[in-house]
Amino acid sequence: MIQSTEILNNARKRAVILLSGGMDSATCLAIAAKDNYECYAISFNYGQRHEVELACAKRLAYVYGAIKHLVIDVDMRRIGGSALTADIDVPKHRAIDPAVDVQAADIPITYVPARNTVFLSFALSWAETLKASDIFIGVNALDYSGYPDCRPEYIAAFEQMARLATAEPALKSLNIQTPLATMRKKDIVNEGLRVGVDFRLTHTCYDPVESPEVENSEDSASPTVMACGTCDACSLRQKGFLEAGIDDPIAYA
Amino acid sequence: MIQSTEILNNARKRAVILLSGGMDSATCLAIAAKDNYECYAISFNYGQRHEVELACAKRLAYVYGAIKHLVIDVDMRRIGGSALTADIDVPKHRAIDPAVDVQAADIPITYVPARNTVFLSFALSWAETLKASDIFIGVNALDYSGYPDCRPEYIAAFEQMARLATAEPALKSLNIQTPLATMRKKDIVNEGLRVGVDFRLTHTCYDPVESPEVENSEDSASPTVMACGTCDACSLRQKGFLEAGIDDPIAYA
Repeated sequence: MIQSTEILNNARKRAVILLSGGMDSATCLAIAAKDNYECYAISFNYGQRHEVELACAKRLAYVYGAIKHLVIDVDMRRIGGSALTADIDVPKHRAIDPAVDVQAADIPITYVPARNTVFLSFALSWAETLKASDIFIGVNALDYSGYPDCRPEYIAAFEQMARLATAEPALKSLNIQTPLATMRKKDIVNEGLRVGVDFRLTHTCYDPVESPEVENSEDSASPTVMACGTCDACSLRQKGFLEAGIDDPIAYA
Repeated sequence: MIQSTEILNNARKRAVILLSGGMDSATCLAIAAKDNYECYAISFNYGQRHEVELACAKRLAYVYGAIKHLVIDVDMRRIGGSALTADIDVPKHRAIDPAVDVQAADIPITYVPARNTVFLSFALSWAETLKASDIFIGVNALDYSGYPDCRPEYIAAFEQMARLATAEPALKSLNIQTPLATMRKKDIVNEGLRVGVDFRLTHTCYDPVESPEVENSEDSASPTVMACGTCDACSLRQKGFLEAGIDDPIAYA
């Protein structure tokens, strides 16, 4: 009458979760875990300015019980074209107009060419190896900073392409899951709280600064860098917490 | 009355060419160059067994006048699942049935999960940075070893996705060009000769062996490794040259 853990595990569907270490992907991971997926987290070291994200991703993968956390090196600086990877200043103090959060006026310089396509392609490759049925990505079509590769029509086209790309029968019906697609940032804060995200473990800023006090803290969740508080990503995050009426637990410069 | 070279160059369309160093991608590059594209060649160091390909790609990029040759490191061994990147034996002496070259019976173990998707994604990222209008890839739907990501319906789906993925207006009508899509291997040999491909500079084998005589050769095109002559890639190449009635100029073990 004993059922082995392996047999029970085999009944669980597998999902690959794109995990940047930010609040959106952390919420995606927690949703997938709560939905009883076997979670395989994938992060990218792509020459981003904000390497602290990877430290956050590692902790999040552990906390939410990912079976494995894979960090792939992809040097997108060789290709260039973005303030996040090249020697271009990250824009600061851009007004985030609360009345205009459906679509940003233009594509910001922090856009990395085809970044989500590259990341989803690696996730697809791993999904095929794992015979995973789902890929989770925390894109958001509302408070989305104007990136073209966050739109639902883009995600649908990637899913269609992915189903044709692979040799694995399990992937012929692959789902690209975007549970945050139609949420505003404040809804993501609330959804995160619902599924138990510890927002202290997440990081969002495009241009973090060294923490002025790098003392040994008793709180292991404290980061040694602080968010700048003025880039687009910080502005969107702060607006989300403000509108949700929740205190943002991370430190700002 | 003097027109600057720069102005003349600006009139040329730009193309990113996926260049593996094999005969198919070499032919693609030569076609794009003959069609007067400004060619930007991209190759991948992905933990393949056959690194000699990259040396061939470098020489081909130079010979056919690519403006730039970018080699991207992507460690697909971390993901695994293929004899080309993992510790799995490359199959040898598989019969290539001349009557059955429309589709191989099953997916061979040399298939790298989502490889073309990963490679095309990097090409797309670079194309956006360059404002290139075209991406050339030497996939072939007939003598294609059974890889799902070589089929026309896959390429069409990638193109559709790519047009939605990018912020660059020039890429809204991006073309993924597959000039070899409907050719048999013998046709590719003939097409290569038509556009001036020096097949001595190309390499195809999945599992090359050290050349027994590593003497200083006066012929700089001579490789220091030889093709195995028995893997699927070698078998297809040999069949192509045989049917075209042309001598294959590379060395076999």
